[in-house]
Amino acid sequence: MMRILKFSDPDFSAQLQRIEQRADEVPDVIEETVKTIIADVRKRGDVALFELSAKFDRIDLTVETIEVSAAEIDTALAAVSDESMAGLQLAADRIAAYHAKQKQETWLSTDEDDVLLGQMVRPLDRVGIYVPGGKAAYPSSVLMNAVPAKVAGVAEVIMVVPMPGGEVNPHVLAAAKIAGVDRIFKLGGAQAVAALAYGTASVPRVDKITGPGNIYVAIAKKLVFGQVDIDMIAGPSEILVINDGSGNAAHIAADLLSQAEHDELASAILVTSSETMAIAVQDEVEKQLQQLSRETIARQSIDDFGAIILAEDLSEAIEFSNRIAPEHLELAVDNPFAILSAIRHAGAIFMGHHTPEAAGDYLAGPNHTLPTGGTARFFSPLSLDDFVKKSSILSFTEGGLQRLSQEIIQIAELEGLEAHAKSVSIRLKK
Amino acid sequence: MMRILKFSDPDFSAQLQRIEQRADEVPDVIEETVKTIIADVRKRGDVALFELSAKFDRIDLTVETIEVSAAEIDTALAAVSDESMAGLQLAADRIAAYHAKQKQETWLSTDEDDVLLGQMVRPLDRVGIYVPGGKAAYPSSVLMNAVPAKVAGVAEVIMVVPMPGGEVNPHVLAAAKIAGVDRIFKLGGAQAVAALAYGTASVPRVDKITGPGNIYVAIAKKLVFGQVDIDMIAGPSEILVINDGSGNAAHIAADLLSQAEHDELASAILVTSSETMAIAVQDEVEKQLQQLSRETIARQSIDDFGAIILAEDLSEAIEFSNRIAPEHLELAVDNPFAILSAIRHAGAIFMGHHTPEAAGDYLAGPNHTLPTGGTARFFSPLSLDDFVKKSSILSFTEGGLQRLSQEIIQIAELEGLEAHAKSVSIRLKK
Repeated sequence: MMRILKFSDPDFSAQLQRIEQRADEVPDVIEETVKTIIADVRKRGDVALFELSAKFDRIDLTVETIEVSAAEIDTALAAVSDESMAGLQLAADRIAAYHAKQKQETWLSTDEDDVLLGQMVRPLDRVGIYVPGGKAAYPSSVLMNAVPAKVAGVAEVIMVVPMPGGEVNPHVLAAAKIAGVDRIFKLGGAQAVAALAYGTASVPRVDKITGPGNIYVAIAKKLVFGQVDIDMIAGPSEILVINDGSGNAAHIAADLLSQAEHDELASAILVTSSETMAIAVQDEVEKQLQQLSRETIARQSIDDFGAIILAEDLSEAIEFSNRIAPEHLELAVDNPFAILSAIRHAGAIFMGHHTPEAAGDYLAGPNHTLPTGGTARFFSPLSLDDFVKKSSILSFTEGGLQRLSQEIIQIAELEGLEAHAKSVSIRLKK
Repeated sequence: MMRILKFSDPDFSAQLQRIEQRADEVPDVIEETVKTIIADVRKRGDVALFELSAKFDRIDLTVETIEVSAAEIDTALAAVSDESMAGLQLAADRIAAYHAKQKQETWLSTDEDDVLLGQMVRPLDRVGIYVPGGKAAYPSSVLMNAVPAKVAGVAEVIMVVPMPGGEVNPHVLAAAKIAGVDRIFKLGGAQAVAALAYGTASVPRVDKITGPGNIYVAIAKKLVFGQVDIDMIAGPSEILVINDGSGNAAHIAADLLSQAEHDELASAILVTSSETMAIAVQDEVEKQLQQLSRETIARQSIDDFGAIILAEDLSEAIEFSNRIAPEHLELAVDNPFAILSAIRHAGAIFMGHHTPEAAGDYLAGPNHTLPTGGTARFFSPLSLDDFVKKSSILSFTEGGLQRLSQEIIQIAELEGLEAHAKSVSIRLKK
């Protein structure tokens, strides 16, 4: 049974800490392995990629076969139903429409000193998208990464997806086709990240790497950060549902389970001000668990990292949510907009009883790549901003420089940077 | 003499690579030291901070003295001239005005399926600003980090600045006062970064750490990335000047030297289509170098990492600039706006002959924290965006969920995530 906790329970802090820190520490040995792989790919390029793919993905790659060919894409597409194509296309269209609203424009502006200042917004030249392979191959991830990149105007979107034993997920290739991915390489793991970050004879170097992956991929991304940009350090997924006693216990239970089925490290928490609802959801979770094909995974997640928490009132529930800074936050309350302004940190906020998290996972439009593990305190959902960069623009007239010259020289001098001061004063001499 | 190169020189690539990779590799031993310091601060908190500050900064700190007191600030301010205060205030005002233009608003929008979607923008709760101490203590850095944080609405700005041997730079404290910094701790190095990232009894944990530092600080920031957000991985500074033969050689030389005086690893490059200008700048650099108080540093930088490059024409110069993706780019040409759209990567672009980089360093308004070492390909100047985070907002009506339910269920099923599908289908049953 899903545990029911109260904030006043003597072991509440310990229970919560266990959930919050469930993926905190990475064994040093994994980091060492990843460092070795990155160094190998930097040094030996394609040859290292071929060897590592044979070893980890049981696939023999060559310069000719490392990239997915047009023929391979056509074969895959033939296996996808028209209905699936239409569903993915709808999702792509809605994701594109939402992200287009995030667009920031280049601006220029002049001030009273005749100084023209501005900010130029440009798409990144080339982006790499990591897509997990095998069982956990999700076409929705392809759309959530590639569509915003293309809306931003990225010229070249390079996808990497491991094909263990040569196995391809046709829906992943279909999603890539719909999203306009430019090139696809049959690579996964830390070696794929290294190839994108540094480039090899076959794989072009990119400017940024986005997309989810296992712990090796996550560490590799962190290690190449600075050489390229990355999206964020993603941990296991989580949902927090805030409830005021209104709504339907079966719906809330279904939402908790939709998170729990992801993997054993996922966390699903309900915080409710109603004891009746707490018990009803506990019952429903148990009932629905028994009907799930992924029961074993979901049950493990619920047992280890699930909880129903009884709050005194809605404010206590909100305060708790702000402490957690959840990736997904459902406001399963009668009037969600009344409490929205009290929510300080959350990746995505699902308002009211008709907005299950799954709707956001696929096609509502907002990105499903969200900050996990409390990082919503400072990280944002993947967005159009991730696929552009900015340049400041400064333009002084002779008169404008003259008017501001004294203060510039003064600050340069108090910082002891004489050449800075001289670069201004030399322009004042007539 | 500053070397003059041509793209066709046989060793051009080698010369350029030496400049580009001048700060690429970090010795493993530094990373190990930083890891040990971070682990120590996490484990022993304040006690570790006191010991490390005694060791590295020759200062004895206690719970009572670790934070700069109001009295200490008053004493420092008494040492700052009214003129300096006015200069720093002007800079703060202009920086605030520019960054206010970067503000992104929360938005909500409904679509034809009656789905309400949006994006909520919120300031970070608490930000930590690293300010180098001792000789390289720059009040302008305080302003460039703290002012945008405050414009963004960050509730608490915590500054750390080492005070080696107890030495305080009064202008740094004056800038902190003007910028509205909330608390200041006498800490530096990797231990300061660790304290901000994890918190100790005295130092509150922050959500993001920004600001420049030495190699230990840079590595510490990279290591705590994910635990908190960081601004960017900053390397040594650089300037690239593009010239078409117009303008004044003495001015261009002065701008190159204003970069070179920063430190021995700084890089100053002129690329010009005019051989006359190349030679004139070479002469001017030599002449002005001899008059600089920081001649030794500047000369080392010019000798090691400076270059004047002769281009066939302006397009070749621009192409080279796009390859370098410089931190500071001066378009020292007659008509800079005519070539702006050809510039693909640059941290800040200084237009025309009256816009020396030093103006941007202090008070033009745009941030002087800029992407270095070619990272302008994907990083942006420090901006208001760095001090906010976003949450997606999703709100379905019952009818809207009904209309989109088939496609959601379909994608969930092709991803094999049954509980996701059920969280939607359960809401359709009547």
